[in-house]
Order: sequence, then C-alpha cells, then structure tokens
Amino acid sequence: MAYEYDLVILGGGTAGYVAAIKASQLGMKTAVVEKEKLGGTCLHKGCIPTKSMLKSAEVANTMKHAGIFGIGSVEPEIDMGKVQERKQEVVDQMYNGVRHLMKKHKVDVFNGHGRILGPSIFSPMAGTVAVEHPEDEEAESEILINQHVLVATGSHPRPLPFLPFDGSLVLSSDDMMTLDHIPSRMVIIGGGVIGLEFASILTDLGTHVTVVEAGNQIIPHEDKDLAGALKKALEAEGVTFRVGTALDEDRISKGEDAITLQFDEGEETFDKALVAIGRAPNTEDLGLGNTKIQLDGGYISTNAYYTTKDANIYAVGDVIGNLQLAHVATKEAVIAVEHMAEKRPYTLDYTTVPRCIYTHPEVASIGRTEKELKEAGMEYSVHKVPFAAVGKAVIAHGGKGFGKMLVEPETKDMLGLSLIGPGATELINEAALAKFLDASALEVGSAIHAHPSIGEVMMELGLDAEGIGIHV
Amino acid sequence: MAYEYDLVILGGGTAGYVAAIKASQLGMKTAVVEKEKLGGTCLHKGCIPTKSMLKSAEVANTMKHAGIFGIGSVEPEIDMGKVQERKQEVVDQMYNGVRHLMKKHKVDVFNGHGRILGPSIFSPMAGTVAVEHPEDEEAESEILINQHVLVATGSHPRPLPFLPFDGSLVLSSDDMMTLDHIPSRMVIIGGGVIGLEFASILTDLGTHVTVVEAGNQIIPHEDKDLAGALKKALEAEGVTFRVGTALDEDRISKGEDAITLQFDEGEETFDKALVAIGRAPNTEDLGLGNTKIQLDGGYISTNAYYTTKDANIYAVGDVIGNLQLAHVATKEAVIAVEHMAEKRPYTLDYTTVPRCIYTHPEVASIGRTEKELKEAGMEYSVHKVPFAAVGKAVIAHGGKGFGKMLVEPETKDMLGLSLIGPGATELINEAALAKFLDASALEVGSAIHAHPSIGEVMMELGLDAEGIGIHV
Repeated sequence: MAYEYDLVILGGGTAGYVAAIKASQLGMKTAVVEKEKLGGTCLHKGCIPTKSMLKSAEVANTMKHAGIFGIGSVEPEIDMGKVQERKQEVVDQMYNGVRHLMKKHKVDVFNGHGRILGPSIFSPMAGTVAVEHPEDEEAESEILINQHVLVATGSHPRPLPFLPFDGSLVLSSDDMMTLDHIPSRMVIIGGGVIGLEFASILTDLGTHVTVVEAGNQIIPHEDKDLAGALKKALEAEGVTFRVGTALDEDRISKGEDAITLQFDEGEETFDKALVAIGRAPNTEDLGLGNTKIQLDGGYISTNAYYTTKDANIYAVGDVIGNLQLAHVATKEAVIAVEHMAEKRPYTLDYTTVPRCIYTHPEVASIGRTEKELKEAGMEYSVHKVPFAAVGKAVIAHGGKGFGKMLVEPETKDMLGLSLIGPGATELINEAALAKFLDASALEVGSAIHAHPSIGEVMMELGLDAEGIGIHV
Repeated sequence: MAYEYDLVILGGGTAGYVAAIKASQLGMKTAVVEKEKLGGTCLHKGCIPTKSMLKSAEVANTMKHAGIFGIGSVEPEIDMGKVQERKQEVVDQMYNGVRHLMKKHKVDVFNGHGRILGPSIFSPMAGTVAVEHPEDEEAESEILINQHVLVATGSHPRPLPFLPFDGSLVLSSDDMMTLDHIPSRMVIIGGGVIGLEFASILTDLGTHVTVVEAGNQIIPHEDKDLAGALKKALEAEGVTFRVGTALDEDRISKGEDAITLQFDEGEETFDKALVAIGRAPNTEDLGLGNTKIQLDGGYISTNAYYTTKDANIYAVGDVIGNLQLAHVATKEAVIAVEHMAEKRPYTLDYTTVPRCIYTHPEVASIGRTEKELKEAGMEYSVHKVPFAAVGKAVIAHGGKGFGKMLVEPETKDMLGLSLIGPGATELINEAALAKFLDASALEVGSAIHAHPSIGEVMMELGLDAEGIGIHV
C-alpha cells in the first residue's frame, strides 16, 4: 500500500512524537514510523525510568538519614522488583499519554522499520519511506510518499570494543531497566552523566559502586569545580572513583558470574559492569545511501534548521549529535517542522539549553564553562554563592552545594551557570528562561524570589555579579 | 550616650537587617535596634523554623508511603524533641550568618527597645531614636541621632478576642516553636497560610487535625480551584475541615488540659488549639504619637517609596501590612533605603510577588486571581495543565496537582498563575522572573526547560496560552 503524507517521521521517540504534534498543529498530514514503542529511549530506557528509579533510591536514602530530621533512621527494605514495577507504572502512564496525543492530533503511526528510498516511481527526489516488517515475512511494506522526511532515529548505548554488552555481566543502560536485583558490587565504566546517575541510584540502593573514568575529570564537559564537588559528594555517599584509569582488554577478565578488573593498585572483582561511555547514533539501515545525506563522525550533518544535503529531508535529536538531551531533541524537532512549514523559526542557541545530572546531590548547568570561555578568549567574572547562604537549602540538605555564575564584565550577561545541591535540576529552568530572554545578572537578582526557597541562590548570584549580594 | 547615624532601623528582622546591609553598601552609617534577636519572626518563629519542621514532617510522610516506590513502608518514629533540636540548629546557623553579615557591613546593633522622639534638642524633626532597656533599670538609654529612620518592627500573632493565647492550651504560631510533644488531637482556628502549614506538618507527624475556617473558602485570597484542590489534598492526608464555621465565646469551653468546641454537628474535644487568624502590626510603644505618622487599620501608612507623613521616617514590612511576606519586606526595605540615598528605585509591583504555602502538597501563586480580574473588569483566558502531563511530576507525586495560568487575551501577558503540586514553591520563582521581565506566556513556553523536570509544567502552560501546547 502507498500513502501520501506531508511529513513522515522516522522514529517515534521524544523528537519524533513532538515533531508530529507540531506538524499536526501546523496542518500537516503526518506519519510516524517506529519499530519499537512510541516514546523511544527517553520514555522507555532513559530520562523517565531512570528518574523513577532515582526517586526510589532517594526514598531509601531519606529513610537511612531520617535521624538528621528527628525521625528515627531505618535501614530501608528495598524490593528491586517493586522498584521496577513502580518504574513501569510511570512509564506506562506516560506511554498511554503519548499514544493518546498521537490519536488526538490524528498522526498515523506505522509500526515497522522505516527506510528512505532513492528517486523512484513515487518521487523524483530521494525521501519516499518504505516501512518494512522484518519480523513478519508475510507482511508487505507500506510506501509513504511525502513532501518532507524527518529522521529522528535517536541513539543507542555505545559498547566498549573489547567488552561487548552481554546483558548479564556486562550491561548497557538499557539492561539496567530490567535489573531485578541489587548487585552487591558493581563497576561503572564511564564517569559521564549516565554512569554517575546509575552510580548514585545504585549506591543509595545498597550497591558498592566503583566508577572508572579514563579522563582526568568526571563529567569532563562541565565546570571543574562542579565536577570536583560532585565527585566529593558521591564519595561521601560511598562511591569509589578511579579517575584517569584507561581500561584495555588485558585488564579485564570475565568469569562465570563475576568480572575482574586489573587496576594499577591491584585487581578487583565485581558482580556486574555497566558500560556507560556514551551513545552512538542510529543511522544503520535507514537507506541513507540512497540520499545525499552526509555523516560527520557518524552523526547526520544538518544546517541550523536541521535540513540535510537533501533539502526535503531533515534530521534532529541524538542522531545529529549535538547535545544528546531530550529537551534539545524536542526543540530541534519543533524548529525543523516550523522550517518545513515556512514559519521562519528562530534557530536554537545551544547556550540556552539546561544540562542536568540527576545524581544525589543534583547538578545542573547552562551556558559556557570557564574552560570554554578561556579557549574562546572571552573575559568573565566568577561569582560563587554557597547554598549555606540560603535557609531552605540548609533545611533541605545542610546547605551543602553552591552556585557559580560566570558573567560578562561589561554587559553583565550571564555566560554560564553551574549548580550543585538540592533542587538544582529545577532551579536551572529559571536560568534557562533568563538566558532565553537575554536577562542580565542584575535582572535575575532583582526579580522577587520566594522566601524561603532554594531559588534564592539565583537571586544572590545575580546580585553578587553587581557587587550587591545580600547574604554573601 | 548619643550617637549619630545616617540611618536608624527599628527592628532587626528580615526587612531590618536587609535594609542595614543595603544601606551599608550605599555608604550610610547604620544602626539597627532590636529588642530580641536579629532575624526576627521570619528566622526565629516563622519561615525558617516552620520549614525545618515541615522537612521533618515530609521525611515522616515519605517513610509512611515508601511502599509506593518499592521501598518497605515503615511507621516513622518521631522524636519531637529532636525535630525541634534540628529546627534550632538550622535557626542558629542562619542567625550566626545574620550576625556575621552585620559585622561584615559594619552595622551597629543596639539591643533594646527603640522609641521615636519628637522634635527635641537633638533634632528639630521628629525621628531621633531612644534605645530603652526596660529590663535593666540601671541601664541608660542611648540616643541615636539620625538622618533617616526605618520602622521595620514587624507583626505578632493576632489573638481571638474571646480566646486569648495562654501558651499551653491555646497556642499561637510562636508557641508552636517550643512544642515538645505531638498533640493527639488539635484544632486549628484559621484556614489561612499559617494554619494550613501547621495542619500539614502536624498531620504528617501523627496529630488528628481539625481546621476551622469562618469564611467559605480556605486561603480566601487565592484562586478558588487552588483552594478546593488544597482542601481535598489535605483531607486525603487526614485533615478534617470545618469551613464556614464561625466560632464565638459560647461555642468554646476550656478545661484543665483540653478544649471543647461546639459545632453544629456536636461537640469535639481537642488537646490544644492553635489560633492562626492573622498577624497584627507591632506599632505599640514606638513613639508614633511623637510623629506625624498615620495608621490605616492599625498599619503604618506610607507612599510607594515607603516614606511616612514624616519624610525622614520610612516604614516597611509587616508593620505596613501589604503582603506580609519576608520577600516583600526585604524588597520594600531595599527600595526604602535606595530612596533615602536618592537612587530613584523602581517601586514594587505587588503582582510580581510570589506567594507560597508550604503544605504537602505545595501551593504557590503569583499575580491576580480570577475573582480579582473579574472585579477589575479585566478580560482573561484560563489555561490549565495537569501535573500528570509532566513525567517528573508523575514520578514525584503520581502527577497530582495542576498549574493554572490566566492570560490577557491580546497581549498574552501572564496575569496570574496558581500551582499546586510537588515543587510548586520553587517553580514559582521562574514565574516571578517572567513577571518581573514582563515576559509573555509564549516566551515562558519557548524557553527550554530541562527534561525531565517538574518545571516543564510552566512551559506547557505558556504554550497552551498560544494554543500550541505539546503534552496537553
């Protein structure tokens, strides 16, 4: 069967389904091709399920430390099956929501593998999409003739060449979604966001976690002070770090139900390894060879409106490899669709994108780091406010943590902001609004912040940039 | 002894000490007269200690409901003495901070009772301040000659005429600070912010709480939907409400260690009563009779720069009776001091002030309510987004709660916002920045919000105002 659409979207993840809603709002007849479930990695294996697990871990942590607040501490009884059940309930609820949204917006969803065809009887341009059903030999392919294609196929966990995922001993973040017990000892290879989030979750749930990072700083793209403070905080919770430790084949031996790593200081054995060294784009089998699409380091190349070398084919999200974040993917998706509809959207300024690490304590940042500013030869002043200056933060977590704002000395524009402490991943949204509106530090400092709220740290940072901080 | 100052501040509460810091930054020689402790009600009997108690209550609540998250629920063992100890630790830490700030900014602090003198040998204008020491007969008064006076004497719990506070059976919010056990049954008279916060805290700590509200809506100045949702949520936690129930002398009988209230449906006996019907301004014994200062409903009258009828005497905070909130008091204080220093400050737009209720669930709002807009004859559109549309809110609290935004139909300005749900008292800060910057709903909706974060509800509300919501 052949169908005609204004827009065919390859991938029903966050970017894909948001693009479909936007396209529908703009009057485009739209189809989504998804081989697994609508919602993609973010909903089923990423953002949402990990934060549900994190919430369970937080509850366990709260019970362990309740004594601080005058409530008798208890050793939490953790039922990993129920932790996963709760996670699944949340995921299912949101999944039903996405399915409902597709119906509401009259988006057709094709379950199958989408492949882009070259110029053919259907169109003189590359871009017609064939929906294949590799698991059902009898099923016929559907042909989706279209005006525009959006490639939003996402990414998958990148394996270590010498330590491939096996689903039992060597796990990917995907495998963590079905972990049915709490490992006693776990090594996490990779000290980036994903590795550290699992380090935090597992530690709170009772696992002895070692994080191995090849570089000389965890979360290498983030501010150095921030990385240092996070490392220290996670160490205080019980995480062991081996930073500047590159692994190779010779240092790893897999046994029946244990994995042993050879460090300079001696060998250590773990129940399981989680490999979290990044995510690779899903560009295989998409028919890209039938198009003019170019790859750069494996990622699809686009311009600022997310068009590829084929002007009718767009690509957004993890597969183009900018910041691999769900909220970036959705924004890229909206811009791409608005561009197709000739709505002349603003392009995305990536320095207005918040970056969050859902560890305990939470970490969030936006804009540029000191290192980036130095490399760009830009002037900046540094303003640091401890959470201890803010009553609500003292109440929440003893005032541990800080905010650090980098400010352009003349315009007083906020160039970068890093936060570590309770609520950081929510506070960063205010900074994102400020960046979007190009607010000065003084404007952030002058807006009335609720007292008591942890958000007062934003106000103090803004005022400090003008030398008129109140509580610092 | 007589001393000379540029500014003498009566009252070292939040407004007073912030005014002193600001004055010091502007080069003014400043003294604060405080008869109790620097930090005032907010630090010692209000915002800070109640939120510490609330945090303990939250921890207890988390333990009770841990099962939801796959962690075994336990009945929390609450040690009220330790809850109060933790509270005191937090208060002491912040109190030391304030004392340090006074030293750092070279502010002189006089411990005693400040009284404004009329025209005298010290000055032809009313305003010289005498610091009296009523508890020390031998101590001499200090005389503080000055250019400006700022009255920031705050407020105190308003008693019921027929049920005065006695500190044991009939308590004020002040008395709650020293409560050393958890009452079994408590009646809270007054369904405003203070009453409800204690209702939430005590319920989580195990008290059977009944709230009696004379009007027909709890939190009467807030949005009707918001009040309805909060009532329902607190009822679900175990609070009993008697709304539209006016009390009088005949309906109350105090026993030895119990208090009995006669309701239409029958009588009920409680261990204690908390009277929380509002706060009255502290204007007694200030020497106001020596000045031209006028009172309006008991509160000191000022203009928009907080000058009284005596141009050299200013008043801010609870004693002038606008919104009685710490963050309002500090802003008023800063404006007053900047005005004294001829800095031409902006006046405060009270529709940019966030209002928070630290119950469980949290409630926050800003700007105007539907009722106010109707009364003002203003047009508006209503936009409602359930927290269930936001993954992080589903994770945190099952997606219960909502955001409600009132938008001007033509300019798309945000006229009002009400939130109920997890994190509401932090989310409101983003709205406050938006109001301060006069951002449109679309701008709030277009800023990139971290995914997943509860703050996404702000984005969805902003987009919904333009009819382009994604997840609703």
